[in-house]
Amino acid sequence: MAKDKKPRRPRAETPKGFRDYFGVDVTERKAMLDRIAEVYHRYGYDPLETSAVETVEALGKFLPDVDRPNEGVFAWQEEDSDWVALRYDLTAPLARVAAQFRNDLPSPYRRYAMGPVWRNEKPGPGRFRQFYQCDADTVGAATVAADAEVCMMLADALEAVGIERSDYIIRINSRKVLNGLMEVAGILDPEDPSKFERERGIVLRALDKFDRLGPVGVQALLGKGREDQSGDFTEGAGLNPEQIQHFLHFLNVEEKNLDTMERQVAQRPTPFELSSNVFIPKRGRENPNYDTLQRLLSLVEHSVEGREGVNELAQIAEMLFYSGYYSDRIILDPSVVRGLGYYTGPVFEAELTFEILDEKGRPRQFGSVAGGGRYDDLVKRFTGQDVPATGVSIGVDRLLAALRAKGRAGADPKGPVIVTVMDRDRMAEYQTMVGELRNAGIRAEVYLGNPKNFGNQLKYADKRQSPVAIIQGSDEAARGVVQIKDLVLGARIAESASLEEWKSQPAQFEAARSDLVAEVRRLLAQGEG
Amino acid sequence: MAKDKKPRRPRAETPKGFRDYFGVDVTERKAMLDRIAEVYHRYGYDPLETSAVETVEALGKFLPDVDRPNEGVFAWQEEDSDWVALRYDLTAPLARVAAQFRNDLPSPYRRYAMGPVWRNEKPGPGRFRQFYQCDADTVGAATVAADAEVCMMLADALEAVGIERSDYIIRINSRKVLNGLMEVAGILDPEDPSKFERERGIVLRALDKFDRLGPVGVQALLGKGREDQSGDFTEGAGLNPEQIQHFLHFLNVEEKNLDTMERQVAQRPTPFELSSNVFIPKRGRENPNYDTLQRLLSLVEHSVEGREGVNELAQIAEMLFYSGYYSDRIILDPSVVRGLGYYTGPVFEAELTFEILDEKGRPRQFGSVAGGGRYDDLVKRFTGQDVPATGVSIGVDRLLAALRAKGRAGADPKGPVIVTVMDRDRMAEYQTMVGELRNAGIRAEVYLGNPKNFGNQLKYADKRQSPVAIIQGSDEAARGVVQIKDLVLGARIAESASLEEWKSQPAQFEAARSDLVAEVRRLLAQGEG
Repeated sequence: MAKDKKPRRPRAETPKGFRDYFGVDVTERKAMLDRIAEVYHRYGYDPLETSAVETVEALGKFLPDVDRPNEGVFAWQEEDSDWVALRYDLTAPLARVAAQFRNDLPSPYRRYAMGPVWRNEKPGPGRFRQFYQCDADTVGAATVAADAEVCMMLADALEAVGIERSDYIIRINSRKVLNGLMEVAGILDPEDPSKFERERGIVLRALDKFDRLGPVGVQALLGKGREDQSGDFTEGAGLNPEQIQHFLHFLNVEEKNLDTMERQVAQRPTPFELSSNVFIPKRGRENPNYDTLQRLLSLVEHSVEGREGVNELAQIAEMLFYSGYYSDRIILDPSVVRGLGYYTGPVFEAELTFEILDEKGRPRQFGSVAGGGRYDDLVKRFTGQDVPATGVSIGVDRLLAALRAKGRAGADPKGPVIVTVMDRDRMAEYQTMVGELRNAGIRAEVYLGNPKNFGNQLKYADKRQSPVAIIQGSDEAARGVVQIKDLVLGARIAESASLEEWKSQPAQFEAARSDLVAEVRRLLAQGEG
Repeated sequence: MAKDKKPRRPRAETPKGFRDYFGVDVTERKAMLDRIAEVYHRYGYDPLETSAVETVEALGKFLPDVDRPNEGVFAWQEEDSDWVALRYDLTAPLARVAAQFRNDLPSPYRRYAMGPVWRNEKPGPGRFRQFYQCDADTVGAATVAADAEVCMMLADALEAVGIERSDYIIRINSRKVLNGLMEVAGILDPEDPSKFERERGIVLRALDKFDRLGPVGVQALLGKGREDQSGDFTEGAGLNPEQIQHFLHFLNVEEKNLDTMERQVAQRPTPFELSSNVFIPKRGRENPNYDTLQRLLSLVEHSVEGREGVNELAQIAEMLFYSGYYSDRIILDPSVVRGLGYYTGPVFEAELTFEILDEKGRPRQFGSVAGGGRYDDLVKRFTGQDVPATGVSIGVDRLLAALRAKGRAGADPKGPVIVTVMDRDRMAEYQTMVGELRNAGIRAEVYLGNPKNFGNQLKYADKRQSPVAIIQGSDEAARGVVQIKDLVLGARIAESASLEEWKSQPAQFEAARSDLVAEVRRLLAQGEG
């Protein structure tokens, strides 16, 4: 290389699929996560922060003998020949920690985690390769009381960040019920679960799409297949009409009746005796969970796993009921599937039910912001021992978008008070002013750009969304006064005032230097009133 | 691969050099960073969170034509052929952002950033490959008022997290003064800065080690070289005796007199006229900054850059003085060098001056926890235009360790109230109890492990550092009461009580079920009193 060859300038660009977060992007998310952490803390959950980097072996999902195992993850090989990768979620690291520290951690271990995860996927609009997750899990609790707790905590967290009670619904289902359904329909053989795997995958995906495709679309996917509007054909599960009917009956179970049940003095229910009442609904009101359980039981009663699933859902429903979480907030809903393969018991999903306008201005339901379920096999990968676990993950960016849509993200965008620089040599005095303001708890800064052009200083104040600017030239300094400019009022006048009004400058007034802090505080208090 | 070949179990291990943070590790750091962020916010700084991944090109320091540029960083090549890497600090991403968004950001742009950075270095005791940094920088301000501001803000941040005023000192020097010194000593030619680069590097490293090696060690390094106790020889700069004397005189300048100057009515100083007083110290007290400036000027007055450096330091000292940051907190100190090659003007360092015991039980000063300086060339890499910048980085782990050493990290380690499970079938009622406690703002959880062995439940409560356990068997339930166990008192009694005292169980009492919340609240309030 010739020494005097001028190197090309580097491009100032975020890598493809990544983004930066500025100002309120950061503070609004932080405020939301702080409120969620407070709820998790109150429930006895402890924070855990694992490293961003994990061995590919611990993350799982990837074969160690593949040359470059970067499907879906960012992975690279270290010199000591270990493949490592950036975590793609917060659950895999938890499973690793639960195994690695199993002798030191309390059992059950309740933990929450908040932080970025990375996916090596094709970026798209609103889809980034680094994004935040916010998880809470309990490791080591076999009882579905843990699942019920997570659902209650999720409801509390949503309300804590500002989602109103009527604006969300948490739906609960059970993989065991789904498996029971498959078994009864003849596409799951408990003796040989490897049979019909393909069919079951198609059925789960079809059920998951019920909201979008409706009964006709699902029927097609359960049978020969479905052609969409564009002409693309999706292969079906190839079930016979009787089997298809079985699944459609299952989907009709859910009547989406969100009536509130009132709490009552009730006999403790015996979950397996579903023919007697599980709950005693208030006279004349419907108990949607009770109806759901009755119908599910009738559909899967010939499957051991299915009955177990219904029993677990009944226990969860009972606990929710007695803790005051009625079906206006949390409801059993058999249509919930959840994509991830590792779920083994209850699965749940939180949906925001209010409408927003999509890119094309059409109203649509906001949709899912959190989900989770029971995964009893993740820790077993490491230890060989059964370690039951359940948890929930909140989609941080989606929930924050929802809060913004509702005007509840709540960070105050107000900028600092700007002390302008009229006289470069008197910088020390301007710094004394900002120091006084800060000591009074007021956000303030001195203008540090080139002070020559005063217009630039006011433009800067505008860009910073400053409420107040302070001006002191040598004349004012000699007289012991400052000029105080109310930029909020100034902006309002600029929009509407006549030239005369403008010239009278009501938004700017003189104050004694010694009254600086008091006057600024008065102005800021006005702005909040 | 044979299908039935059982795969080896993955190892549950953090990758080499990485670690996990549990419970108070996370909350104490968060509490500290929250307090620092509050100070930064008050100074008008906005948060910025860049992605963890940057292009190697944007990070700089690495040649794009090297096959695997992973010296010091974790880097890998993406399929679209870009080399990317995990950021190794928060300054390089800021330079990229300042260039990329230069048309949208306010100028000057004040930002703070907090988050993990990654270094692909050999891990050691207390040295990890992922650690936190906490930076605040101003981009676009040429005035040293920005440097003074950063130093004042650093002092405020240290005090905000709990470091007392007498326990830290911020030292300021200038690269320009150091360059002036080199020029006068004949090892910097302003016409051809490439000459004597090796010598200057050795000199800077030697000056940086003054605290540790003392005058004799530095003298050796400036001359022929130095043999340490182990017999290892470090090559010297090869300066002649006169040159060496020049640098030693420079080091003696610093008298480490930390007397507080009282603020006085003072004539505005003219920084270049150092022969007249820059500051008017209170009669009879010493002004260490004034003496330092006088001596520095005498050493570098024949270098243009050196004079400029002294002038800048004088301006900074003036601003600090007028803002009330006297030399008990921030002081000029020519021995500060700061390792990073990219500094171009003022450099500074915060040191904690209290003693702690090292691994071997010997008292030693805690040492440096933050540092920074002016780097006017980092953004220019991208844009070709001069963009002045200055900032500070706090070593998060070190500062947190200091707070712990001082007992001021302050997170409350108290665990949740534990509602035990005597009767598995009455889980719904136990959940109702924790619900009531939580609604009263009390951290509480129900035991979710296998309830069979009650001793395990109390062991769990112990591991969770629970202050209170609630017990209700079927007998208590029938009588409408609960047992409340004061675990704090119980532990105290267990340490000292006689068998009789132990049997009388003063730490456990019965309360009406309806008084549960009130009684627990009373107990917790006692614990805080």
